[in-house]
Amino acid sequence: MNELYEKIAQLRERIRQQRPLLHHITNFVVMNDTANITLHIGALPVMAHAREEVGEMAQAAGALVLNPGTLSPEWVEAMLVAGRAANELDIPIVLDPVGAGATSLRTQSNLRLLRELKVAIVRGNSGEIGALTGLGGVVKGVETVEEVKEPQQVADALARQYGVTAAITGPRDIISDGERVLAVDNGHAMLKTITGTGCSATTMIAAFAAVERDYLLATAAGLVCYGLAAELAAAEARGPATFKAALFDAIYNLSAEQIRRGAKAQYLRGGT
Amino acid sequence: MNELYEKIAQLRERIRQQRPLLHHITNFVVMNDTANITLHIGALPVMAHAREEVGEMAQAAGALVLNPGTLSPEWVEAMLVAGRAANELDIPIVLDPVGAGATSLRTQSNLRLLRELKVAIVRGNSGEIGALTGLGGVVKGVETVEEVKEPQQVADALARQYGVTAAITGPRDIISDGERVLAVDNGHAMLKTITGTGCSATTMIAAFAAVERDYLLATAAGLVCYGLAAELAAAEARGPATFKAALFDAIYNLSAEQIRRGAKAQYLRGGT
Amino acid sequence: MNELYEKIAQLRERIRQQRPLLHHITNFVVMNDTANITLHIGALPVMAHAREEVGEMAQAAGALVLNPGTLSPEWVEAMLVAGRAANELDIPIVLDPVGAGATSLRTQSNLRLLRELKVAIVRGNSGEIGALTGLGGVVKGVETVEEVKEPQQVADALARQYGVTAAITGPRDIISDGERVLAVDNGHAMLKTITGTGCSATTMIAAFAAVERDYLLATAAGLVCYGLAAELAAAEARGPATFKAALFDAIYNLSAEQIRRGAKAQYLRGGT
Repeated sequence: MNELYEKIAQLRERIRQQRPLLHHITNFVVMNDTANITLHIGALPVMAHAREEVGEMAQAAGALVLNPGTLSPEWVEAMLVAGRAANELDIPIVLDPVGAGATSLRTQSNLRLLRELKVAIVRGNSGEIGALTGLGGVVKGVETVEEVKEPQQVADALARQYGVTAAITGPRDIISDGERVLAVDNGHAMLKTITGTGCSATTMIAAFAAVERDYLLATAAGLVCYGLAAELAAAEARGPATFKAALFDAIYNLSAEQIRRGAKAQYLRGGT
Repeated sequence: MNELYEKIAQLRERIRQQRPLLHHITNFVVMNDTANITLHIGALPVMAHAREEVGEMAQAAGALVLNPGTLSPEWVEAMLVAGRAANELDIPIVLDPVGAGATSLRTQSNLRLLRELKVAIVRGNSGEIGALTGLGGVVKGVETVEEVKEPQQVADALARQYGVTAAITGPRDIISDGERVLAVDNGHAMLKTITGTGCSATTMIAAFAAVERDYLLATAAGLVCYGLAAELAAAEARGPATFKAALFDAIYNLSAEQIRRGAKAQYLRGGT
Repeated sequence: MNELYEKIAQLRERIRQQRPLLHHITNFVVMNDTANITLHIGALPVMAHAREEVGEMAQAAGALVLNPGTLSPEWVEAMLVAGRAANELDIPIVLDPVGAGATSLRTQSNLRLLRELKVAIVRGNSGEIGALTGLGGVVKGVETVEEVKEPQQVADALARQYGVTAAITGPRDIISDGERVLAVDNGHAMLKTITGTGCSATTMIAAFAAVERDYLLATAAGLVCYGLAAELAAAEARGPATFKAALFDAIYNLSAEQIRRGAKAQYLRGGT
């Protein structure tokens, strides 16, 4: 029995029992998808962005997702208001720095969120995390077109600079909390054929962070479950749209037994 | 032959013939879904929220849907502008008070819409309608986590206070116009596994309200057809995403014969 | 061997090789769908609307899509900023005048974009292009409810007045650059049962415009591939939602051989 996988299977069940609220301030492209994924993994979604209510809403949440994928300055202000409210009650904030590196506004806005808030977890692709650390990688639009050379060092750098758990997702996901490092090898190439798969992975992570305070473990659990669901879905897809439907179904149906059999994760440094 | 079911079957056909325009000012999460459902039931959708055009657009509509599910104060102002234009021409307004009770902004904004506009129909879950009437129920995000104790009394209260037809949806839907009360028992537990099913039910109601001025009947027709489509869809779903696709297909394909055979609705008070 | 079809098949492959970025400033209803279609045809999507970043983003793009389908004055301003940046680098702008004719704001905003920017391609339905030229047609919401009488003349008129390639889509698509005229007969009636199919056709066109500077050819290629995918999808659909999934899959899977066999396009004037 793999202890890590057993913990992940238990956490997946814990979400179903606790039904935490995931407050998203997220981009227009993925709102519907991430609300659905929140329900499928067993949590409750709410999307709310008005400055007048985000503080109140965040304080009812089990986790707060900040995703400036279609950002405007007003929405970044609302993220700061919600984030401060979450910080007061020690509610974990999960940041998805969509498109950091593509424009100055995106890079600077994400850095501001990292500096002004106590963020628990950051999940991005290679180029995005590279842009936030200044350690390389190239982003075009919202996709990495050139990867960072040493993902583990880059994840470490972000983790240590801002006191976060940092995840760089790709064919192999690398997660660092500055001390421990975990690799997750679940996933499937079909994920590249649909939009918002990074955002959806972030929502999965947030669901686990709402029920588990070891954020390295929570991040790994979210990425294992998401990647494993993608593997199961790819087996029956006839293209990207049927893949997406099968992915969402697989997240909903994902069982402890499937996790025990299919998880692919290991500590690269530290851990037990 | 059940007269109520026969009327519902006829109304469903009337929508296909008249193709009324449903002007939505709605939330970002469900815009795509509710535009699709509008087409599937046989009406025409338009989503428009700019103050500069909502009055003109609303006056071309067969019904106006107001759904402050991702509200901001500016959007509420636009809803008021559109609502006043609709009221001038006696175009029915259908309000979906998403998340009323979850934050003060949501509760107050929905009450303001109810006070300043002549709303025809309000559809919400138990906690939302409870919050608007002050008669109990608890909302977390956008979901009821504690139901009101006496749904029929609560629906009556909202109906009488604001002169609306009030629908509380759940396993049994309760609809009151203050005098008559109808119960609808169509529906399926899978509806809880996807986002926006309340919003979609509201769009279904609006399609019927655009072609039938007995709003109690129109509301029942919308909920019967939506719930029945969900029952048909659940039979072939492998999870929430395949359920959603089957639900949308079933709304489009829903026939008079299916309605006559599958509808489950009855007057609890008044009616014929 | 039909030379036109051969070129279209080659262009479809060129998109996959070059992976151009399509910067969309588009409406909330279709953002998810058009981002997905961008990926399925082989390009990269980004949705960005903040004035503070649209210039920078547009300049990294292979094409800029302007779609004021849920417009507000602020978004139209952002479209102008992005458009000017695209014009400076000769990046093609593809305009989808959603709902022109339905309200004064929509008609005027689209005319302003046409006057102040050098637009490469405009794609609309019959009533929308009629409204922009003042040559007839009636729009209700975002759909044509009365067609223009002479689509070729109307397309010519728009093309000549603004120096654009103009496409009027419908059962037969008519494309004019003011000199040459092309007709495309691919497509399927099921496209009318789902939302955003016009917007998606525009995104398809933009993908081809990013890799081919003969915009008449690029427009035809986009419409042939989209319409052909719809035909393939309709064969296996059980309703609008399964049609949509099959359509998206078909766009992704569309092969040179399918294009050679299934394309239906011809020059009505000029061309080779």
